[in-house]
Order: sequence, then C-alpha cells, then structure tokens
Amino acid sequence: MSTTNGVNGASPSSRFDPGFTQHVLDTMGENVAPRTRLVLGALVRHIHDFAREVELTNDEWMAGVHFVNSIGQTSTKTRNEAHRISDVLGLESLVDEIAHKLVVDGDVEPTSSSILGPFWSPHAPFRDNGASIIQNPNPDGRVTKMHGTITDLLTGKPIPGAVFDIWQASANGKYDFQDPDNQSPNNLRGKFRADENGRYWFYCYHPTAYSLPTDGPAYQLLRLMDRHPMRPAHIHIMVTHPEYRGCTTQLYPSDDQWLSTDTVFAVKDDLVVDFKPLQGDDKATLELEYNVILPPKDYKGKL
Amino acid sequence: MSTTNGVNGASPSSRFDPGFTQHVLDTMGENVAPRTRLVLGALVRHIHDFAREVELTNDEWMAGVHFVNSIGQTSTKTRNEAHRISDVLGLESLVDEIAHKLVVDGDVEPTSSSILGPFWSPHAPFRDNGASIIQNPNPDGRVTKMHGTITDLLTGKPIPGAVFDIWQASANGKYDFQDPDNQSPNNLRGKFRADENGRYWFYCYHPTAYSLPTDGPAYQLLRLMDRHPMRPAHIHIMVTHPEYRGCTTQLYPSDDQWLSTDTVFAVKDDLVVDFKPLQGDDKATLELEYNVILPPKDYKGKL
Repeated sequence: MSTTNGVNGASPSSRFDPGFTQHVLDTMGENVAPRTRLVLGALVRHIHDFAREVELTNDEWMAGVHFVNSIGQTSTKTRNEAHRISDVLGLESLVDEIAHKLVVDGDVEPTSSSILGPFWSPHAPFRDNGASIIQNPNPDGRVTKMHGTITDLLTGKPIPGAVFDIWQASANGKYDFQDPDNQSPNNLRGKFRADENGRYWFYCYHPTAYSLPTDGPAYQLLRLMDRHPMRPAHIHIMVTHPEYRGCTTQLYPSDDQWLSTDTVFAVKDDLVVDFKPLQGDDKATLELEYNVILPPKDYKGKL
Repeated sequence: MSTTNGVNGASPSSRFDPGFTQHVLDTMGENVAPRTRLVLGALVRHIHDFAREVELTNDEWMAGVHFVNSIGQTSTKTRNEAHRISDVLGLESLVDEIAHKLVVDGDVEPTSSSILGPFWSPHAPFRDNGASIIQNPNPDGRVTKMHGTITDLLTGKPIPGAVFDIWQASANGKYDFQDPDNQSPNNLRGKFRADENGRYWFYCYHPTAYSLPTDGPAYQLLRLMDRHPMRPAHIHIMVTHPEYRGCTTQLYPSDDQWLSTDTVFAVKDDLVVDFKPLQGDDKATLELEYNVILPPKDYKGKL
C-alpha cells in the first residue's frame, strides 16, 4: 500500500494502529470532571477520525497549525475571529439548535431561536410602544412600523409585560459599535414592554444585508470553500418574560438574495417574513407584523 | 425532551435537523479543489458530529472560542502554540503515522518514524565519525558513545554514504535555540556519513526528560485533562540517502518514567533503547548501539 495520501478518503484505516486514540484518551487522569472527560474525549476521537479518514498530510496539518495561530493573532478586544470562524463552519447555529430544540406535543411550534451574534448590547434603553429606535437617520433607510403579539405556546393567550428587545444594523450595514462617526450609542436598539394584550409596536428600518470582514482568516476560509461572505438582511430580537422560556432570534425579509446561503447558517423557515407597503402613516412606508410564541419556563415538550 | 444538555452523550441526535450539515457542505462552490472539498467537508462533518454527540452547550462553545483565540495570542516567531496543542492531542503523531506507515512483505520492519518536533535545524554541521557533538559540556551530562549500522530493508546490506543527522537537548532539558547563554549554535547537533560498511559512530549525551512550557494554552489543556507536561528523554535522528526512503525518528532510554504517557505520544516500541555501561573509553561512560533499517525509495510494501 502506498504511503502517499488517498484522494477519496475511502482507504481502509485498519493499517493504522487501532489502539492509538484509546491510548491518548487513557492518559487523562482520574481528576477530570465527567463532563470534561466526555467533551474532550469526543473531541480527540473526532479529530483523529477526521485525520485518518482523509489521510491528512503533513503539509495540510502544518497549514492548519498556521491557520489556527492566525485566528488569535487577528482577534482584538473588539474583533472575535474564532467566533466568526465557528459561525462560518455552522457551529454556532448548531450549538444554538442543540440548546433550544424543543419537540412539542401539539401543532403549534414556539418561535425558532437563532444565534445571538456579537452585536447584542445589555445597555439598550427601554422605549415606549410607538416610539422609534432610529436616533440617527440614514438617507437609505426604509422606515418600517413593526408590531405583533407575544403569546403562550400552550394556551394561545397573550403575555402582558413580555420584553421585546430589538437591535439592527443601519442602512450602511453597520451597528452603532462599528460606526461611531455616524451613529450614537443605542441607535437602532430598544426594549419594548408588551401591553395588556401582549402587543408591541415601534418604528425601525427594513434591514440591510452586509458582508463579514474580508481581511482575516474567516474570509480566507470562505475563499477556500468558494463561498461568499454575505449575511442576509436581518433584525435581531430577544423576547423575554420571567415565567417563559425566552427566545433570541433573527428575522429575514423573504426577498433577500442570501437567505439560502447565509454565511453563518442562521436562517430558519419561520423566521422569514414579509415586509408590506404601509399607507396612512406619515412615519413609515413599510409594515412588518411578527408574532412571537413562547413556551412556559417549565415546559419540557415531548419526551 | 429537555433542552438542557445530556451528560452521557448518548442522547439521540435525531431530534436535530438532519439536513443541516449537508446544507453547510452544499454552500461550497464549484471552484473548490477536490482535495480541499474532501478535507474541509470531513472537517465540518466531524465538528458537527462532535457537537451533536456531546450536545455541546453555549458556554462550552464560547469557552472553546476563547481558547482558540488564546492559542494564536500566545504564539510568537519562536513559539508555535498551535503546533504544541496538536501534539498534546496526538495529532502530529497520527499525521506522522499516516504519512509513513508501511505494511511490509517480509519479517523485517523498517525503523519506525516519529515526529520531527520544532527543534530540528537545517544548519547542523557535518562532523567526522568518532567526533563529539558536545560543544558546551554540561556537568550533568553523561557522555555516550553512540554507533550502529544503516542497512537496506530488502537485502540487509549496508548503505554506505547514508547521512545520520542527530540533535538533542542538553542535560538541562534545553536545545541550543532555547539556551543561548549556555550553548553555542549547533551544540548537540551534527551530521555523520556512514562508512563503506554502513557504520556511523560519535559521542553525545544520554538524553534528559523535559517539560513542555507550562505558561500557555497547551498546559491549560493538559491540566483540564489531568495530564503531566513531560516528554520522556529522547534523541532525535534523521537518516537519509538519495536512494532510500529517509527516516525521521526519536530514540528513548528504556528506563524513562514517561515512556507510556509521553505528552506528545511519539514513543514506539522499536524506538526504545538500552544504554549500557562502557569500559575502556576515556571519553564516554555509556554506550548506545542503534541500527537503522531503510526501505528503498520505490518500495511500496504490501498492497
């Protein structure tokens, strides 16, 4: 058998030492927490299985070593490249699904979760229903009246007092953090408290698609995979109430061209929405209705 | 079913979107090289399978993100932490096995390879057989006369002119690169050319066990796994000849206490050697005989 590497990954791995991976795992000591043993053990197994499956070459391994070093070397206090790398590999979306997947008893599904992303702020101000989150108007912004009802998964009844937290990029594709010359802190951020009928309403922008940074390892990886760096336009929301399981998610205009190839894989069917023309409101030209369904805090779903 | 994470990794993954991983893979474009598609595709599959298998939590994922960033932030021009992380996970040794594994026809096995490590130098000088590689004596060094024969795997005949390149740490556990105050360049390094009988001989030190650095992410990972940071004592060798498949490997004293738990998993049975007392040589108190067996360059082994 040749010692050069196969190109189809189908070569039998039986020619390699069958005890090697177990030997590595067995060096873990007795003082390892059970969960740590489980997670790191599985990580080692999958890394080894990956290397044997593709017969990873020395050059490929060394390219990977250099790539991993470059991730941390690109990161700063305000740029988290490892986070971004895991996003473009689909890992953050998968972890989000693992954490929030609920198999329900009935026909009604709770609102799907999606990834938090790096731009949420704990400092967004409460605003009154009917107010606008637009502090710094952008000439390309299309003002939208967004409204909806927050209801209980099991009873269908409204959830008065639920907090609807929204944040979004401006029409230039940048969040306040990233654009201090044009945006004041908390521009396009706000929290709204649902009224006695579980209703919220306010003014925001139709969202704008944007590109991930194209000057670092995440973009190098995207280029290697012949993928684009675009996120579809989206609005981030986080809906919470002390008696309910909160929902952090994102909403996407149905006509966005990047929906099916979102570079971080955060789109789900029930999160795709229609913006409609709005007449008779001098503050907005578009309307978006989005209703949120939350399960009670102790709801376990179908076992 | 609970959305909290299982502790045994045995929960069915069927409740997660069965199409997610394929969707991520399908975003790779048509201009991806076949080998790149194979390697990155397998990498994504194994990362996803790992996350689903252990039901990776958001906190664990974020801890991993911070850990990956810290690797590059610890690396410098003279310190490669990603290389070291892959070593303590067994990956460099596995890649070395994949590259060099040869299944032979007959009873004689070629000398096993082992990892190169970060301390080989292309600038080691040629020295004459019988010379010493000890430029800067260390009071704790135990001088050893090392010698042996380099032979052909198939014919058993000697390989005159084969180059035997040796490098080792001094008795303080440091290589010349790491210890400029005590060691001049090329201390404990040298290349020797086998004579007409395939023989080489020179003076070196009995090797000394040493610890990996304990101030970075690799050591953090070892602590998480309740593992020590020790490498068993070893001598590095690289044996080459234009007509043979070269061998890069390491030799270990049989009485070393770290053999079975080498922190980088680079020990193999045929690389464990006995140092013997030497009498009648005023330059050395120990002797090590090590014979090297090389396959011809075009030898493919058993298919």
